[in-house]
Amino acid sequence: MSIESTALDTTELYQRVLQFYARQSQLLDAGDVTAWAATFTADGVFAADAHPEPVNGRGNIERAARAAADDIARRGLRRRHWLGMVDVTTDDGTIRSRYYALVFLTPIAGQAALHVSTTGEDVLVRSGGGLLVRERRISRDDLGAGAA
Amino acid sequence: MSIESTALDTTELYQRVLQFYARQSQLLDAGDVTAWAATFTADGVFAADAHPEPVNGRGNIERAARAAADDIARRGLRRRHWLGMVDVTTDDGTIRSRYYALVFLTPIAGQAALHVSTTGEDVLVRSGGGLLVRERRISRDDLGAGAA
Amino acid sequence: MSIESTALDTTELYQRVLQFYARQSQLLDAGDVTAWAATFTADGVFAADAHPEPVNGRGNIERAARAAADDIARRGLRRRHWLGMVDVTTDDGTIRSRYYALVFLTPIAGQAALHVSTTGEDVLVRSGGGLLVRERRISRDDLGAGAA
Repeated sequence: MSIESTALDTTELYQRVLQFYARQSQLLDAGDVTAWAATFTADGVFAADAHPEPVNGRGNIERAARAAADDIARRGLRRRHWLGMVDVTTDDGTIRSRYYALVFLTPIAGQAALHVSTTGEDVLVRSGGGLLVRERRISRDDLGAGAA
Repeated sequence: MSIESTALDTTELYQRVLQFYARQSQLLDAGDVTAWAATFTADGVFAADAHPEPVNGRGNIERAARAAADDIARRGLRRRHWLGMVDVTTDDGTIRSRYYALVFLTPIAGQAALHVSTTGEDVLVRSGGGLLVRERRISRDDLGAGAA
Repeated sequence: MSIESTALDTTELYQRVLQFYARQSQLLDAGDVTAWAATFTADGVFAADAHPEPVNGRGNIERAARAAADDIARRGLRRRHWLGMVDVTTDDGTIRSRYYALVFLTPIAGQAALHVSTTGEDVLVRSGGGLLVRERRISRDDLGAGAA
């Protein structure tokens, strides 16, 4: 494979990851939890240091996300997940992404505010023409554990 | 068209949209309203659910933006538009973009703060080597109407 | 060089700058100040309008950054640099980037908050397969000097 095509692959993959995150966040924030859960592999894992243990499997991930989305809606809030500073690496065919994520909440007729700052680490896999999350680990900046 | 060149087109278009939004925001935030308005088509439409009705045509868009920029300057504020989570799709040659936008305000000698969280939907058209906005719809998260 | 390959170069460079900023911010925010300083050229310059004069040379840049990082750690804070709205231009082989940067701070067991909003201007140079900062100028939005 020539240097040119390697460079193209990296650029193309990076763009796909950014766009994947954009769509994924918009699905979750719009309350379309089933479509959001479908962006994980069937055996996907969602681990967050704010939760006592990892959630395993797309069905469980969907149920946990729906409970959270319902709670947000009940409180009359709009939620926006911003992922940024995305660093994508590939190693032996494994696509890893490390990024920051901010969650903003806006009450209807109220003031938008930053809710929480986090760091995310994903293992992504190609599926058809797109990407799926096989593993996601979210570390909240306000919790003492985990890397700085 | 081969799969490779299609992929390249998507990656290239996505990069151009990101860079277009970067330049566009920087123009508006620097108070260069005429140059900012020139990023819309002559018959461009700017619709915001915070305003009673859409603004039609580049000249009117420029006048409305100048009034807002003058007000910001008069109050001694610096304004920064951040667009993110950009999802670009093309359909029948129409380029659509759906994104989040945050506005931050900083008073001189004061504390930077999040002003408002919004969602944007653009119809973009190619023009020369670049892009122009033909239609922009901004929905504020704090207003009850519109999609979640 | 054909139009196609020029377009590829632009797209590829833009992706590299975004990923470079992601890695660079993550290094600094993780307290890995030596690796962060290595993203500047040996004769790199870091100028910030919040400081009385520019810092010259990688060694001095590292020392200044370490003092700031130590202070953040001592206060029990986590710091996150978000760079966005990145506009990259090339002229006579010089790569220039103009962008916004936000700094968020989160106390352990406390509330994440926006600390400061800034604008950055970099001169970047290619080095090996990557990029280095030769010159960085940061303007705080809360200071009166500099461009709007």
